[in-house]
Amino acid sequence: MKKICLLIAYDGTNYSGWQKQLNARTIQGDIEEKLIRLTQTEVALHGAGRTDAGVHADGMTAHFETKSRLSCNDFKRALNAMLSGAIRILDVYENNNDAFHSRFSTKGKEYHYTLYTAEVMPPEKRLYMLHQDKELHFAEMNECLKALIGTHDFSSFENSGSRDKSYTFGKGAVRTITTTKLEKLDDNTYRFIFIGDGFLKNMVRNMVGSILEVGRGYKTPEWFTEALNAKNREAAGPTAPPHGLKLYRVFY
Amino acid sequence: MKKICLLIAYDGTNYSGWQKQLNARTIQGDIEEKLIRLTQTEVALHGAGRTDAGVHADGMTAHFETKSRLSCNDFKRALNAMLSGAIRILDVYENNNDAFHSRFSTKGKEYHYTLYTAEVMPPEKRLYMLHQDKELHFAEMNECLKALIGTHDFSSFENSGSRDKSYTFGKGAVRTITTTKLEKLDDNTYRFIFIGDGFLKNMVRNMVGSILEVGRGYKTPEWFTEALNAKNREAAGPTAPPHGLKLYRVFY
Repeated sequence: MKKICLLIAYDGTNYSGWQKQLNARTIQGDIEEKLIRLTQTEVALHGAGRTDAGVHADGMTAHFETKSRLSCNDFKRALNAMLSGAIRILDVYENNNDAFHSRFSTKGKEYHYTLYTAEVMPPEKRLYMLHQDKELHFAEMNECLKALIGTHDFSSFENSGSRDKSYTFGKGAVRTITTTKLEKLDDNTYRFIFIGDGFLKNMVRNMVGSILEVGRGYKTPEWFTEALNAKNREAAGPTAPPHGLKLYRVFY
Repeated sequence: MKKICLLIAYDGTNYSGWQKQLNARTIQGDIEEKLIRLTQTEVALHGAGRTDAGVHADGMTAHFETKSRLSCNDFKRALNAMLSGAIRILDVYENNNDAFHSRFSTKGKEYHYTLYTAEVMPPEKRLYMLHQDKELHFAEMNECLKALIGTHDFSSFENSGSRDKSYTFGKGAVRTITTTKLEKLDDNTYRFIFIGDGFLKNMVRNMVGSILEVGRGYKTPEWFTEALNAKNREAAGPTAPPHGLKLYRVFY
């Protein structure tokens, strides 16, 4: 058996997220199906994490084990030929370190959330950026971003449901965020960047939803800090829509 | 009656082109339907021209006549609220010049056709650029572009079928191209620009299809010039796919 790793980009628009589901089209499901067809055996594809329906990725990572004699380059070319253009295999490499696992070995992740602020949203951007045509208070949003840095219990930004118990290692909702940024890409485009050791369910979208409450002037940075400290989802703001979000890369 | 003009951008991916059809979703059909709902009367929307299924626009123009008391700004806001994000009304203005007609008054059009040349096509770009991962011969493609400038019978680049007789004014397949360019946008992105007084059915896609035959080294610039001069569709190359093409603007 050899362990093959994939670096994957996808447009999540028409997918029900990463994780395989019955009766729904998912990224994991699509790639696994092609791997099974290629290797003529059962294959289990393990991703670095899950992304929600409509969320995109530039650098999702995943691995599978196989006895196949196909080379990494064979897998790359065959998968890209078989998959929809909405999913692209950017890189394929072998990693036979026994201890390596795409999910359990992650040291962190980087997410981007992009805003477009002109009055009219260009059709080509509508599936990849959140439209925000109200004037935004940038200094106040940056205060929120600063408040997030460090090790916190992020319960206020965690949607209930499916915390992956096997991954939390007893940390509960405690995570460490090392970098937060709001970059101006051009006159109308702004990008939030979040780097941390791990993110809870919907955590980035919930943080962005609350930061935008402040950005639009409905709430203050003090409210944001209190919401974070409350460790209570109801203290914070709404969940930002999925389409502005992208898993940019996974650190090991 | 007043004459209202629209400036329209659209993502043509999920549309059967501009022109209204029975049992197919079209840009014209969608906008007309909303205008009828808004004004509670029949409305005929006249576009500057047609675009094929899958072709995009940044600056399509169209007009309609109405007795409605809605202001231009009302129309803009209401249409953008009612339409899919795939169609955006960028501007609305009144033009009560009796002689003005969106189609018959056009003096020219500008089309863009975009290529992406890296090995793997990023999912977000796949619907808006043509993937060309073979090395391209740029000097030779520029020779082809030069050959197109001027007044020619473009029969070699016209698909048979539906030439709009009312629009040709006895010119047959003769058109004048004033500008052709191949711009480098970044390391992997190149854009053809075509400006002319009018374009025949599939003309831009047919020119690009033939230029790419030269670009990939299968044909020479001499072949391209002969193909143009043959005034025979069979002398030229294939039709490039629609998704790389965008109607950039219409001149009046």
